[in-house]
Amino acid sequence: MNYPSRLIEEAVAEISRLPGIGKKSALRLALHLLKADPLQTRNLSEALINLREKTTYCLECHNISDQEICSICSSHRRDKSLLAVVQDTRDVLAIENTAQYNGLYHVLGGIISPMAGIGPNDLNIDSLVNRISANVEIREIILALSPTMEGDTTAFYLQKRLKEFPLKISTIARGIPIGGDLEYTDEITLGKSILSRIAF
Amino acid sequence: MNYPSRLIEEAVAEISRLPGIGKKSALRLALHLLKADPLQTRNLSEALINLREKTTYCLECHNISDQEICSICSSHRRDKSLLAVVQDTRDVLAIENTAQYNGLYHVLGGIISPMAGIGPNDLNIDSLVNRISANVEIREIILALSPTMEGDTTAFYLQKRLKEFPLKISTIARGIPIGGDLEYTDEITLGKSILSRIAF
Repeated sequence: MNYPSRLIEEAVAEISRLPGIGKKSALRLALHLLKADPLQTRNLSEALINLREKTTYCLECHNISDQEICSICSSHRRDKSLLAVVQDTRDVLAIENTAQYNGLYHVLGGIISPMAGIGPNDLNIDSLVNRISANVEIREIILALSPTMEGDTTAFYLQKRLKEFPLKISTIARGIPIGGDLEYTDEITLGKSILSRIAF
Repeated sequence: MNYPSRLIEEAVAEISRLPGIGKKSALRLALHLLKADPLQTRNLSEALINLREKTTYCLECHNISDQEICSICSSHRRDKSLLAVVQDTRDVLAIENTAQYNGLYHVLGGIISPMAGIGPNDLNIDSLVNRISANVEIREIILALSPTMEGDTTAFYLQKRLKEFPLKISTIARGIPIGGDLEYTDEITLGKSILSRIAF
């Protein structure tokens, strides 16, 4: 395309680097911002910079956090004998939204996927093992992973790594449609699948 | 949602203010940026700020421009007897992409739409009339508006406003499907519809 302005060309190029946004959508968004209040663009830019440069990860569970230890790990109201292992922050949000779970989390930061070249060493698995070794109050690990090939592979690998510990290992019930994506499951199904979790 | 971090909550709020992007998509984009090179976020933010705060509009045609007079209006290679009236910058880009048009443009900045509360005075119509009065070399006005109710209304209004001038007024041929959106028309159809334009 022959953009009438270098500024719009650069904005379209940067917006369309985001996943799922093509050149036409990017141009639509750029033109929207041009018509809107300049403050909106400034707020958006600052929120993105702040997000990228100030966000940290909880030293305990690896969830996104504003402090060294996140609000869930540092809460006195959570059941510290339960640990749900999830793929990423979106899954923590999805489970928190069900209001059916009161334990802690451990965010793997991804899932074992030989196709994508992601192995166990790329994930927060060693830190999970260390965390379980160091915290004797942990009694049960809930493998709350998406019921896909990669999720099952990761669950199987984790179960092997954790069998040395005197733990109950469970997976969330397969009320979730097989092949589905955990983050898009409705709250009721996801809540029930945590309540009726089954021994791994 | 109970976001684990105020920073991610703010980023999601700002991203989801963009048209067509909901909270879940916004969260997906925010998490993508968190995993990507920090430079990508910085480049994106700067491109958006530059776009919003440095972009100007051509004093002649009102298209987005880096200079006071845009590259199309100031070009010596363009046919200055032809003026295509379009809704916005996206339509200029769509027509330029056909490589079938060598005249100038006039960007209305919208379309007459009583439903959206947009009347003739909200558009660059007075400046179009002034531009035609001041430039005797303009011989033909091509109304290159989307073939929708609003487009037809705007075309009818413009034809009435311009009938005092000794001009040929044409509209792009209705090879474009009625009710369709000009910017999403394929290049060949759009190119042909400019070549076979019909007297209004």
